[in-house]
Amino acid sequence: MSSWLIAIDGGGSTCRAALAGPDGEIVSRGLAGPANVATDPQQAAANIVAAAQGALAEAGLPAGALSACPALLGLAGARQLGRDGRSLLSLPFSQVELVGDGEIALEGALGPHDGIMAILGTGSTFLARQDGKIRSVGGWGVHLADQGGGARLGREALKSALLSRDGVRPRGVLAETLLAAFGDDPARMVAFAGSARQADFARHAPAVFDAAKAGDSEAEALLAAFTKEVEEMLAALVWPGCRRIALMGGLAPLYAPRLAPPFAGLLAAPLGDALDGAVRMGQRAFFTA
Amino acid sequence: MSSWLIAIDGGGSTCRAALAGPDGEIVSRGLAGPANVATDPQQAAANIVAAAQGALAEAGLPAGALSACPALLGLAGARQLGRDGRSLLSLPFSQVELVGDGEIALEGALGPHDGIMAILGTGSTFLARQDGKIRSVGGWGVHLADQGGGARLGREALKSALLSRDGVRPRGVLAETLLAAFGDDPARMVAFAGSARQADFARHAPAVFDAAKAGDSEAEALLAAFTKEVEEMLAALVWPGCRRIALMGGLAPLYAPRLAPPFAGLLAAPLGDALDGAVRMGQRAFFTA
Repeated sequence: MSSWLIAIDGGGSTCRAALAGPDGEIVSRGLAGPANVATDPQQAAANIVAAAQGALAEAGLPAGALSACPALLGLAGARQLGRDGRSLLSLPFSQVELVGDGEIALEGALGPHDGIMAILGTGSTFLARQDGKIRSVGGWGVHLADQGGGARLGREALKSALLSRDGVRPRGVLAETLLAAFGDDPARMVAFAGSARQADFARHAPAVFDAAKAGDSEAEALLAAFTKEVEEMLAALVWPGCRRIALMGGLAPLYAPRLAPPFAGLLAAPLGDALDGAVRMGQRAFFTA
Repeated sequence: MSSWLIAIDGGGSTCRAALAGPDGEIVSRGLAGPANVATDPQQAAANIVAAAQGALAEAGLPAGALSACPALLGLAGARQLGRDGRSLLSLPFSQVELVGDGEIALEGALGPHDGIMAILGTGSTFLARQDGKIRSVGGWGVHLADQGGGARLGREALKSALLSRDGVRPRGVLAETLLAAFGDDPARMVAFAGSARQADFARHAPAVFDAAKAGDSEAEALLAAFTKEVEEMLAALVWPGCRRIALMGGLAPLYAPRLAPPFAGLLAAPLGDALDGAVRMGQRAFFTA
């Protein structure tokens, strides 16, 4: 048994690795491309290995040390595949534990505490841990979920801008900003939407928060609806004794001040990030009796 | 100049052709696959010719007669391309006039009258003709428009069913119907959504109207929101002297009884379909001085 462990946080755009000792101290890190096990298991496996080798190299360890290390993988898409996910990945570690990217984020955000963790980024994830048991709502992807998510918000904002351009709705700051981003040419915006990835749509989400701050009523209405979506998910997870809600993801600081009670009063800064969570879970899986 | 004209109604799933005389009487018809000029101009051209040749054959005319016929093409995607659309299509007709699929539908539905025409099908289109001048709102496709459209409605219904399944919302008739369609397995529903075409999503739209009739509150809320979208578009087009609104498309009879005044009072049955409109426009383009 190695005295090191590899922790992996693999998402739809990047894969991060940490090399940690039995005490959970991270000694080095590595970074590689996407590692979504449901979308492309081969690519995921290659990027997991690349990120892990990056961490080994940074620590001055030889690449061959990989086969002596156990690895805790928190991967996007793991939930869709369930138990089958692990067999899809042919990996050179001494042991492999596969969990969802939501689970390592929950562990990272809450540490040993019970509570709720929501990721509000390009998409969204909502998990709760109560008496050690994890529950989740949503998280079914952009077509059928992603409540509060940035890709959906950005897309709805573009849609609203086109309605303003067509004279269906008033033309305020939000519409002006978004139409200007496409040279005031709706055909360019439509072409963008036809080939845009979720992250491309999500890039227009912060403009909605900015426009709302500037008093734009369309932006305000959109955010009211999206905040209500987030609150509906939190309401399904919260319980009478729940004492903390940690928001993660790029839109977390933008949504936080908009949440109504009781959620507003339960907000707590995340203790760590998803990679920290993967290290903690790895410690428990590989270094405790 | 031939004494016949070819009229084409080309959409995202089929291309219909009519062979008509100068009096506008349709003597034969043809049918082929998709003809969206923006999505795939080569495929569109091939299917336009195939449909037109089908109509010639049905009338007992030789395939070579095509080159003597002028053709009025009403094609999906024509609006995105504008004037460039025609040059993308290399077609063997004596003359070609290209207009949008919305325009031929408007002409078919309203004939010589002013008014509003909305297509509520897989997607949606909203056009008005006032003093002979055509205005449109929406129609920017499923990513950024399609207000009231069946693909979006079907998708939102599946999303709502997953929320019921997760315990976020009550589980009524709509959720039961849709979850049962996927063997009560959310992973199957998510996999469907990942590869579904717009028409596949739209196939779940009628279930929403059925469930609302059965008193399902989720279905009712969805339809209230979608009907409001449709009314917002109609409100942007209607004018004080407007006397008719014609609804077309598969969802038209389902939405019609839900529209509020003043729209409800202006509803008028379409005079004809889009192919009839293409024939009328062809007559005007090719057979009048």
